[in-house]
Amino acid sequence: MYYFTNDYSEGAHPLIMQKLLETNMEQTDVYGSDQYCANAKALIKTACGREDADVHLFIGGTQTNFTIISAALRPFQGVYSSFLGHINTHEAGAIEHTGHKVLELPTADGKLTAHQIEENYLIYLNDPKREHWVQPKMVYISHPSEVGTLYTKKELEELSAACKKYGLYLFLDGARLGYGLTSPGTDLTIKDIARLCDVFYIGGTKCGALFGEAAVILNPALKPDFISIMKQSGAVLAKGRLLGLQFQTLFTDNLYETICRHGINMAMLLKKAFEEKGLPVVAESFTNQQFPILTEKMYETLTKKYGIGSWEVFDNGTRAVRFCTSWATSEEQVNNLINDLKKM
Amino acid sequence: MYYFTNDYSEGAHPLIMQKLLETNMEQTDVYGSDQYCANAKALIKTACGREDADVHLFIGGTQTNFTIISAALRPFQGVYSSFLGHINTHEAGAIEHTGHKVLELPTADGKLTAHQIEENYLIYLNDPKREHWVQPKMVYISHPSEVGTLYTKKELEELSAACKKYGLYLFLDGARLGYGLTSPGTDLTIKDIARLCDVFYIGGTKCGALFGEAAVILNPALKPDFISIMKQSGAVLAKGRLLGLQFQTLFTDNLYETICRHGINMAMLLKKAFEEKGLPVVAESFTNQQFPILTEKMYETLTKKYGIGSWEVFDNGTRAVRFCTSWATSEEQVNNLINDLKKM
Amino acid sequence: MYYFTNDYSEGAHPLIMQKLLETNMEQTDVYGSDQYCANAKALIKTACGREDADVHLFIGGTQTNFTIISAALRPFQGVYSSFLGHINTHEAGAIEHTGHKVLELPTADGKLTAHQIEENYLIYLNDPKREHWVQPKMVYISHPSEVGTLYTKKELEELSAACKKYGLYLFLDGARLGYGLTSPGTDLTIKDIARLCDVFYIGGTKCGALFGEAAVILNPALKPDFISIMKQSGAVLAKGRLLGLQFQTLFTDNLYETICRHGINMAMLLKKAFEEKGLPVVAESFTNQQFPILTEKMYETLTKKYGIGSWEVFDNGTRAVRFCTSWATSEEQVNNLINDLKKM
Amino acid sequence: MYYFTNDYSEGAHPLIMQKLLETNMEQTDVYGSDQYCANAKALIKTACGREDADVHLFIGGTQTNFTIISAALRPFQGVYSSFLGHINTHEAGAIEHTGHKVLELPTADGKLTAHQIEENYLIYLNDPKREHWVQPKMVYISHPSEVGTLYTKKELEELSAACKKYGLYLFLDGARLGYGLTSPGTDLTIKDIARLCDVFYIGGTKCGALFGEAAVILNPALKPDFISIMKQSGAVLAKGRLLGLQFQTLFTDNLYETICRHGINMAMLLKKAFEEKGLPVVAESFTNQQFPILTEKMYETLTKKYGIGSWEVFDNGTRAVRFCTSWATSEEQVNNLINDLKKM
Repeated sequence: MYYFTNDYSEGAHPLIMQKLLETNMEQTDVYGSDQYCANAKALIKTACGREDADVHLFIGGTQTNFTIISAALRPFQGVYSSFLGHINTHEAGAIEHTGHKVLELPTADGKLTAHQIEENYLIYLNDPKREHWVQPKMVYISHPSEVGTLYTKKELEELSAACKKYGLYLFLDGARLGYGLTSPGTDLTIKDIARLCDVFYIGGTKCGALFGEAAVILNPALKPDFISIMKQSGAVLAKGRLLGLQFQTLFTDNLYETICRHGINMAMLLKKAFEEKGLPVVAESFTNQQFPILTEKMYETLTKKYGIGSWEVFDNGTRAVRFCTSWATSEEQVNNLINDLKKM
Repeated sequence: MYYFTNDYSEGAHPLIMQKLLETNMEQTDVYGSDQYCANAKALIKTACGREDADVHLFIGGTQTNFTIISAALRPFQGVYSSFLGHINTHEAGAIEHTGHKVLELPTADGKLTAHQIEENYLIYLNDPKREHWVQPKMVYISHPSEVGTLYTKKELEELSAACKKYGLYLFLDGARLGYGLTSPGTDLTIKDIARLCDVFYIGGTKCGALFGEAAVILNPALKPDFISIMKQSGAVLAKGRLLGLQFQTLFTDNLYETICRHGINMAMLLKKAFEEKGLPVVAESFTNQQFPILTEKMYETLTKKYGIGSWEVFDNGTRAVRFCTSWATSEEQVNNLINDLKKM
Repeated sequence: MYYFTNDYSEGAHPLIMQKLLETNMEQTDVYGSDQYCANAKALIKTACGREDADVHLFIGGTQTNFTIISAALRPFQGVYSSFLGHINTHEAGAIEHTGHKVLELPTADGKLTAHQIEENYLIYLNDPKREHWVQPKMVYISHPSEVGTLYTKKELEELSAACKKYGLYLFLDGARLGYGLTSPGTDLTIKDIARLCDVFYIGGTKCGALFGEAAVILNPALKPDFISIMKQSGAVLAKGRLLGLQFQTLFTDNLYETICRHGINMAMLLKKAFEEKGLPVVAESFTNQQFPILTEKMYETLTKKYGIGSWEVFDNGTRAVRFCTSWATSEEQVNNLINDLKKM
Repeated sequence: MYYFTNDYSEGAHPLIMQKLLETNMEQTDVYGSDQYCANAKALIKTACGREDADVHLFIGGTQTNFTIISAALRPFQGVYSSFLGHINTHEAGAIEHTGHKVLELPTADGKLTAHQIEENYLIYLNDPKREHWVQPKMVYISHPSEVGTLYTKKELEELSAACKKYGLYLFLDGARLGYGLTSPGTDLTIKDIARLCDVFYIGGTKCGALFGEAAVILNPALKPDFISIMKQSGAVLAKGRLLGLQFQTLFTDNLYETICRHGINMAMLLKKAFEEKGLPVVAESFTNQQFPILTEKMYETLTKKYGIGSWEVFDNGTRAVRFCTSWATSEEQVNNLINDLKKM
């Protein structure tokens, strides 16, 4: 069996393992005050073109999401998210647990639009009884989105402008950012993201690290006492250097981009094969998640040899599925799958 | 100007004021341990046909809602509500502030159906990763609903059965319960509600009291330490007797029903007038809230003499509005309004 | 039986009842947007000598405390309180429920000192790992304190200066403020309090109202969106006018002071009687709570005719008790008690 | 410089690193559903002699503490802790952030006693107004305590009995458990702990792992839906196998005990040296934390070559300090330190 189920089924990129091994018996400062964390943060600021940024290293995505939201909002404030947003679905109510409402918005392709934010915010703003509503104060987006789509530079600029206009924080969840940055045809760089968002994070867990997400805070209003909130959230790793070492390695010699591009290349091979097979898709994705719609028979046959995620079962005997590739995906196995597909 | 804007624009029914005045200088026990509270609770249990119920007297609706939900749910659990539900819209995120997600469901008429609950719960239950989702554990409904509609006995029985089947608590917000119980054609009694719900409350604020909501807990699982949660929620009135006195008065000699029926009679006069005028409605309501759709010209003319709530403005030059009647509504003013309407 | 157990055993001052009755069938705006609330707020600002203040009318003390604290603090911040502080003992964890630690400090007489605050804050500030601690951000005091003592003007000035020095908010709980302002020998006026605190409240429940506490916010940092937090806390009364009417009445023609002074006069009669009897006290109080230490025999005899609060039972056969007087206390009953005491 | 500052200054035991490396490119199930987690949990249950236990693998201590407490308590309930308890001091209010009060108790030696719990609980239980108090429902202890002391079997049995008597959960924080189990003279085994506690955890971070704490739930009341709360707390590691692999390694061939015993041996060498030097101590510790009191001159001299934690500065020119040893401590450096000490 070979698994395309997740982009976090393996450990870490070998260079990361090597770095952890080499430094294993060094004594360092704790809780992220060590030199490796300092190095990693410096490299990330440079990559973002923002020396003024605050960078904080987290362990996982749920933790990063609720800590950032909890740090940014006052008790009566909420955060807009697509109904597909990870914070709205797969975090067991972590955002609500910190006291904040996720203000669910519809989406066809996993993305939110500037128009949609403006329209909804104005409903709030124009209500004479708005003090009885949750006050929208943040917009949460994922890039790539939960269905693999990407914002264009223009879309993100418009979203950013709408947020600024109404005093909303723009927060970009980049759990799979590496696969967004290296996607064919994207016109959005990490520097653009750092210019347009108030806060975002660079995913490590799904992009070559054992674990880790690097939060980049641009808006000065979100910076004070951030480590206190991290500590309170259980998000300060005792041996913080483990995060520093990983991100230092990922942001040295373009490793992050290089290995994510491999994941993208593998996904594009799959995408081409699905297209040649004439399979419809949930949403057209140029990132490492592909969502073709298979017949049940195809699904049954393929799942004998490959792990595939089931996304949605339809009444007409078809099923949307998810194939994930990553930095670790075997080209041989991708080719095997494509061959098997061709024979169907 | 005469206001049909709210059903809480006046003080309390004169008999309540008289009772408060008579007893004003009595010394009583505090925090709801007095004899008047005991009397009120006994009368309410009898009215509900449930001597085993626990009755708790609250000050207002938001407080009642979040205290009950907070007492019933564990941190990762959420509550289904129609997207129109008061807890989902007009409580500034009070439910989320206690840590719980409001699981928004669509509705055409303000009501939830058994089928809808079952369907949604099964999506949760059948997800192999359901531990990553908020666990649905409660169903919140309003009766009358936010748009004036009423559950039939059959509908509530089905909803109750679906809840029991999946271990969900059924919680009925009866902020306007008096106007539901006295509505023409309803087949649902307070005893039915007490039989079918795990917890519900009897609205006082909108039904003749200065303030107050009487929560009735039927499910033994929801009873332990409830007063501790009330205290923590700031919901224990120091001079608790004020609540006892009001509910004792309302549940003596059928006062609650008698005065709410007046509100209903006034609403039915309006309803008939709107129908005769051929006005469309947001939802057909047999309760004290009426939602006709007026032309902008009618709206402008009427609001010179009457306070009316603006509900939704449409592109075609019409506007949905809300007329509220209550125990306090003047029949003379209702007739004035109807006459003005006829002249249009 | 006559009860000295609490200062909230009766209803409201007759002038308040009369005002409620007179206005009962008026239609007013809701949620505190009515003219009576506006009048009350204007009168309170004038009494405080601070036209720039924001005044908000609450229903009860616990609610006022947790709403103010929740509005002022970020998630990792806490509030200093004496271990006797109401927020630390009798609110069922309401402050922690909003997510904040009560930072308990020792006290001999119910008061906190500037020195104590400075000393404790410096321990926090000088800890290199202070990001792992709760950040102190507010000081909560009661005036009168829970054992009836009062801050002098000098003490409050020093406390205020210490708070300003370290960026701490000074919050004064004035649930019994009327009995503090009219106490013999106090040199602290309501204007001083408004000058020295960031936020405080004027107790109504224990000082002549049916219920109600008027929060006065002086520090501009605490003002934005305060009503949203009130709404979320269930602290916005639907018929807000009930609060407006009460505080308007209390702050017209010096009623608040006049009726509280009666409570103080009654307490001073008791105090003198206890002194003449040679009874020791828990803390010397010039306010409406008196804490003599009785022999068990005295306690047994007196509690046959009078309700008295038991404060602490000692091993040596004595017991500290609490006598509360109020605006409603009967001079006749005070004299009866004193006569009974003399006979012992 | 050699650091005795913390027991988490290095990476992980080499056998753990080797295991992580060997399995790095394996594809496994995610979120802790893999075989390595299953193996680790089975080994831990066997070590505890409790096949009925639920074992959950966490990343760090703060996270473990607040998740367990949040899972166990209802909103109005609190947890007893010594004032030195980690949850009361160094977690930035994480417990309060989940809504619960830490009920601070005094301690001379870092431990709580059965008598102390009983005495305090009875004050709560006997208060007629106890519904206004936070309800104590859990006892949190650390073993070894924050000052290195250990419970005897008798002490823990008494504490456990007191907890059972009053329906309190006994929760033991074993962040440094390995150093407790291998301490000379302790009569408490991991099986005893599993017999006497409702829930406890086995520290990995300070005992040879890169990171990780293994929570062992014994009381069936604490088991339901625990993973949902972990997810909500951001405590479910995507690549859960990293935790499984580490604990599987630690609980194979007695590695956990073997390597912790080394830490203890190093600590005992230091202890002997301090005694021979006649240095007083904060608390007599037979675990890996030693708290001698040095003169300022000694402190200055030693800190030129060794990292030492400053614990408390006294007025008389002395200073309590903390020396931490661990599985990673160099015997050579310990001897260097001892020699330097002897020369003073």
